[in-house]
Amino acid sequence: MRGYSATDHVMMARALRLAERGAWTTRPNPMVGCVLAHGDEVVGEGWHVRPGGPHAEIIAIEAAGERARGATAYVSLEPCAHTGRTGPCADALVAAGVARVVAAMRDPFPQVDGSGFDRLRAAGIEIVHGLMETQAQALNRGYVSRLVRGRPWLRVKLAMSLDGHTAMESGESKWISGEAARMDVMRWRARSGALLTGSGTVMADDPQLTVRLDGPAEFSPPLRVVLDPGLATVARGRVREGEAPTLYVHAANAKPPRDFASERVAVPADGNALDLAAVLRVLADRGINEVQVEAGATLAGAFLRAGLVDEVLLYVAPVLLGTQARPLFSGLQIQDMTQRMAMRLEESVSVGGDLRLRLYPVCEVAADAGAAAFAGAAGQEA
Amino acid sequence: MRGYSATDHVMMARALRLAERGAWTTRPNPMVGCVLAHGDEVVGEGWHVRPGGPHAEIIAIEAAGERARGATAYVSLEPCAHTGRTGPCADALVAAGVARVVAAMRDPFPQVDGSGFDRLRAAGIEIVHGLMETQAQALNRGYVSRLVRGRPWLRVKLAMSLDGHTAMESGESKWISGEAARMDVMRWRARSGALLTGSGTVMADDPQLTVRLDGPAEFSPPLRVVLDPGLATVARGRVREGEAPTLYVHAANAKPPRDFASERVAVPADGNALDLAAVLRVLADRGINEVQVEAGATLAGAFLRAGLVDEVLLYVAPVLLGTQARPLFSGLQIQDMTQRMAMRLEESVSVGGDLRLRLYPVCEVAADAGAAAFAGAAGQEA
Ligand SMILES: NC(=O)c1ccc[n+]([C@@H]2O[C@H](COP(=O)([O-])OP(=O)(O)OC[C@H]3O[C@@H](n4cnc5c(N)ncnc54)[C@H](OP(=O)(O)O)[C@@H]3O)[C@@H](O)[C@H]2O)c1
Ligand SMILES: NC(=O)c1ccc[n+]([C@@H]2O[C@H](COP(=O)([O-])OP(=O)(O)OC[C@H]3O[C@@H](n4cnc5c(N)ncnc54)[C@H](OP(=O)(O)O)[C@@H]3O)[C@@H](O)[C@H]2O)c1
Repeated sequence: MRGYSATDHVMMARALRLAERGAWTTRPNPMVGCVLAHGDEVVGEGWHVRPGGPHAEIIAIEAAGERARGATAYVSLEPCAHTGRTGPCADALVAAGVARVVAAMRDPFPQVDGSGFDRLRAAGIEIVHGLMETQAQALNRGYVSRLVRGRPWLRVKLAMSLDGHTAMESGESKWISGEAARMDVMRWRARSGALLTGSGTVMADDPQLTVRLDGPAEFSPPLRVVLDPGLATVARGRVREGEAPTLYVHAANAKPPRDFASERVAVPADGNALDLAAVLRVLADRGINEVQVEAGATLAGAFLRAGLVDEVLLYVAPVLLGTQARPLFSGLQIQDMTQRMAMRLEESVSVGGDLRLRLYPVCEVAADAGAAAFAGAAGQEA
Repeated sequence: MRGYSATDHVMMARALRLAERGAWTTRPNPMVGCVLAHGDEVVGEGWHVRPGGPHAEIIAIEAAGERARGATAYVSLEPCAHTGRTGPCADALVAAGVARVVAAMRDPFPQVDGSGFDRLRAAGIEIVHGLMETQAQALNRGYVSRLVRGRPWLRVKLAMSLDGHTAMESGESKWISGEAARMDVMRWRARSGALLTGSGTVMADDPQLTVRLDGPAEFSPPLRVVLDPGLATVARGRVREGEAPTLYVHAANAKPPRDFASERVAVPADGNALDLAAVLRVLADRGINEVQVEAGATLAGAFLRAGLVDEVLLYVAPVLLGTQARPLFSGLQIQDMTQRMAMRLEESVSVGGDLRLRLYPVCEVAADAGAAAFAGAAGQEA
């Protein structure tokens, strides 16, 4: 166990905050931040902004100039060892004369995965890693999930009344939560690689599923994904309109209309229920790190029952909708207390007059070793 | 509009905190705190501990001794003008030579209600009131409610799952919330004049409805009230056992068993539904300031529908109980969004792994002028 100084912690926290500035633009790449410092003095810093653009380390080295020599480099992720547009960052750090590299976590990307550290070590640079690893893993939970588990991190966003309802019996659900909550949702959308909904919500709400911010800010428009087994909703829907791409996921036997313009993909289905794990594999293959589900209780419940929900983003409005209204998650077969599904309350904040809760389902049994390791990492985030 | 100094605010805040120390013991009396000060220097202070015991002002005057002369007295409630065990506090303040009295609010008690102020003024003492009145009204919301509206302040305590359920379909509900939440409930019980439940909960849970604290502390055991129209549960039930008194409320046609030992009272009923406003009048007549309802969704829903709920104390546990489970409030007839019942989220705090919300139903229409005035006062508490 290596000891880290207070300065090490301060600098790594700074690198992590820098990394997060790329949250709306780096995908499918991870968010990475880099700080170069001599003791307490920062001599250069940077973060990865977008795919194809320079890596955090390169920006920091350029900012530092000659002062990079002898500095400590704090990086939120292992420096890359493969040749991209700017050559391996590990080599650039060596060439700049950096004396020591402190990394938060190893990069699970197969072409890196330890070889960045090896290269630095081979060049005689002191290298330590694991500082604030929990925070670094949490920051890139989507990227890590895609590489380690082969599926995106899945966040289910729902707006619910105090008595646990997501819509009226009639299907009416608009304006459960307030304006501040709706603006807050936009920021979560902006960091998602895909926004996923179901045919039920397209029919009931006709959502646009686009990012609409209240000020100028750069973001990559998330892919809009509609699970529509029979391609029944493709003729209408604002979800097809505008700049952002749209992907319809359907069953093999669905008949697309002749003039169908959007992209589509078939996945296996059991009756009308699409294989949700297969849906997520399709999205991972497209480089999607984080999926935000914005569907009704049917699909939200189906993802939950399939054990595919990693995070629940719940806006609770202090209103009562009564007993006839629709549930939070449909189809949970729970007979007695021992079968209850436990979650961990990660965060609770006020958003306007509403409350925003962030919850992690508690994994009782891990499906496989990889998933278990990942669940462990995520579980330490608190 | 009179100006108050920073010192005035500090001293009144102190008087209010002192007053609250009596929360578990003063009833049916209000909580009152008093601080005597020369400028920034406190020369005496006190709070009302229990009925029959000395008032806050008398304790503070005795503590100050000769230094009471020329002091400012900060009182959270108008000093009394009627003769109790120790004579009117207003006279005691005059006799002690206090120069100025700052009060947070007028005492709505008919034998005081402005006459305390009059007496002080008549003796040539400078008197101002209204400083931190909102907080003072909130502190004694039970006492004020009983005197102004003729009914106790009604707080509904419920433990709910994340998906809005208070019990399984089978009636099982124990341990929805965690140990920390259950201890927290005990402190809310301690400040209640009565703990009210229904026959359904007595049958399902057999609660004791007593205050069980984790350390030594003085409190007056709250009256346990069971709404049992047919007196069907009186033969069993821990609610009849132990030190605390128990009152059964039933319909006129109920036949009490021969050896019935507990106290009971009949109120008008519509079928099996007792007149809940009548129940509250009975409790107000017994000097109950705050009632805490700890019943199931049936009775909680009935109080809510009757417009008698002032405060909802909701413990939200991060578990899912599924769609078959029982609701938060039964019987709310809500067809569309416009009929939704709005609440104001007053407070949200973590209690162990659970969340405790405190909500106030938003009064759309005030039933009468008195209630409107009171709702206004309570509405300013935020
Ligand atoms: N409060 C909120 O945050 C919120 C958010 C969104 C929507 N809503 C409300 O929710 C309601 C709509 O929700 P919904 O439950 O009817 O629909 P939904 O969950 O949005 O979509 C359900 C549909 O997805 C399709 N699907 C594909 N694979 C599936 C699988 N494996 N399991 C389950 N479904 C699968 C099915 O389509 P087919 O039927 O075509 O086969 C199914 O009917 C509306 O009232 C809307 O206003 C509320
Ligand atoms: N999560 C929690 O915080 C919590 C707290 C307490 C209880 N519970 C659970 O709630 C369940 C019991 O609740 P419940 O809803 O069955 O019973 P309840 O609300 O405790 O009591 C309902 C009974 O009160 C009587 N009553 C008298 N006047 C009434 C009126 N005006 N309106 C309605 N009822 C009136 C009726 O008795 P008669 O039927 O005798 O005529 C009625 O059945 C249990 O499963 C228990 O575990 C949960």
